[in-house]
Amino acid sequence: MKWPASIRICEVGPRDGLQNEKVMLTVEQKVELIDRLVQAGAKMIEIGSFVHPKSVPPMADTDEVAKRIKRVEGVEYRVLVMNVRGLERAEAAGVHKAKLTVSASRAHSLSNLKRTPEEVIRSFAGCADYAAQHNIELSGAISTAFGCPFEGRVALEQVISVVSHFREFGVTELSLSDTTGMANPEQVYGYAIRVKEQFPDITWNLHFHNTRGMGLANVVAGMQAGIDRYDACFAGLGGCPFAPGASGNIATEDLIHMCHEMGIQTGCDLDAVLAVGRSVQQYIGHDSASFILKAGKCSDIVKRKKD
Amino acid sequence: MKWPASIRICEVGPRDGLQNEKVMLTVEQKVELIDRLVQAGAKMIEIGSFVHPKSVPPMADTDEVAKRIKRVEGVEYRVLVMNVRGLERAEAAGVHKAKLTVSASRAHSLSNLKRTPEEVIRSFAGCADYAAQHNIELSGAISTAFGCPFEGRVALEQVISVVSHFREFGVTELSLSDTTGMANPEQVYGYAIRVKEQFPDITWNLHFHNTRGMGLANVVAGMQAGIDRYDACFAGLGGCPFAPGASGNIATEDLIHMCHEMGIQTGCDLDAVLAVGRSVQQYIGHDSASFILKAGKCSDIVKRKKD
Repeated sequence: MKWPASIRICEVGPRDGLQNEKVMLTVEQKVELIDRLVQAGAKMIEIGSFVHPKSVPPMADTDEVAKRIKRVEGVEYRVLVMNVRGLERAEAAGVHKAKLTVSASRAHSLSNLKRTPEEVIRSFAGCADYAAQHNIELSGAISTAFGCPFEGRVALEQVISVVSHFREFGVTELSLSDTTGMANPEQVYGYAIRVKEQFPDITWNLHFHNTRGMGLANVVAGMQAGIDRYDACFAGLGGCPFAPGASGNIATEDLIHMCHEMGIQTGCDLDAVLAVGRSVQQYIGHDSASFILKAGKCSDIVKRKKD
Repeated sequence: MKWPASIRICEVGPRDGLQNEKVMLTVEQKVELIDRLVQAGAKMIEIGSFVHPKSVPPMADTDEVAKRIKRVEGVEYRVLVMNVRGLERAEAAGVHKAKLTVSASRAHSLSNLKRTPEEVIRSFAGCADYAAQHNIELSGAISTAFGCPFEGRVALEQVISVVSHFREFGVTELSLSDTTGMANPEQVYGYAIRVKEQFPDITWNLHFHNTRGMGLANVVAGMQAGIDRYDACFAGLGGCPFAPGASGNIATEDLIHMCHEMGIQTGCDLDAVLAVGRSVQQYIGHDSASFILKAGKCSDIVKRKKD
């Protein structure tokens, strides 16, 4: 097996994690978490989304959050948007990176947005124009890229079709998202190898949920396919409505811990990230599916015994 | 990545799982679980241990369990023993496969048994003689083969030293056990490749705990090294005293689910194994760290949506 010397982690907690919580954090709490994550070494961070406040209430204050966070040179602060209105809010808040999401599954797309994946992507054409005019960089995320609660396993051809559409208007950074934790390592490796081959000019990112325990195994498979960018979420928050109570995104601290144990650099200070995870659990008021927050690092038990 | 066409799972729940529980199951419950597991396709099953009843009270009834289970042709019923006395009990109960465990870590061995790994192995010499005379097949398990709470990362040389000693008295089936959930995929792959190369006549098995979320990732790494035997525990029971409350062994149902999703055969009926897992949770009276028992199979959510 070949391992990357380093990987780049995109922290999606402030968006994908917090949008699933009942407790809404204050702007101050969000800003504090984001600033601490950046201080801990995060170079890519999804700070929120500019979507309709009624559809995702916990993200309604993203404008305010974006304005108050400390901007550190070299850090990519990103938001999720669905349309030009979202990009206008990004522009107003001084955010220059935005992510557009399309489902690879037709049924999932119809269920969520009442539009087919193709219709959703077509609606993004205006976004591409606006982004180009306002110096906003766009990236894309393909949700249900491996499995879908309606269709089951999602065919690679559907994923490739969405990728092609994204490329048509110049997006060169894409994420394959296992929205409902249905991907397995064999599939991840196969899909990743194939999209990399077919679209060598695209920068690939993978997004896994640990719903069925395969999260880090899928990261290992992605690494073998040569992908070195992974989303992760503080304290392992997030989830999917189809498996209530199940684990959410792979936890940032679990991913960093595994990488460091393997000699793979992340640029992150694990202890500082763990401290953020503990604050997150305190703010949301409940435990979460993070292994290292529960079990401690490998080095902890050795240290404890030596004391 | 290359995947095995099939793997062989050794169910260690009745021993490694139940010995860690406060609630002691009755002989009837144990026999029922074992018989159901075999019916569900288990071909290797660790039914208990013949150690001193006072040191592991939940295993004190293993003699009785061994006598009452249905014996199915082609299924390997195995017990853990520590000495000739254990083998005598195995012989009396009609069990013809026994496992001897040694720690690769000197500090761990001294702490647990007040003897060095070498002294423990030397004490097994009598077992080899007894087993040969009574037609009992011996296998070995090397605990703390990757990491140890006292020493940290365990050097491959220590593992190889223990392997060599085991081979001296004819054991040709060995398991590398990540007793405290400290192994990582890079290490698993490296150690597995090396022991396979150096001891090609030994049948290798891997035993992982999911303490730090890397359990199935480690299985993937083991598969890449060409190992096709893995321990797993019903409902994900088991654990380690150094990380109280943390996840235990990789859950049998999670491992089967991942393999089947990947097109890897296990010979097991996942639904039947899940039913056993639910009974186990009911008998022990609490929830446990099993992903599939919580989230359901990938195919479940698709089915539910179609109904």
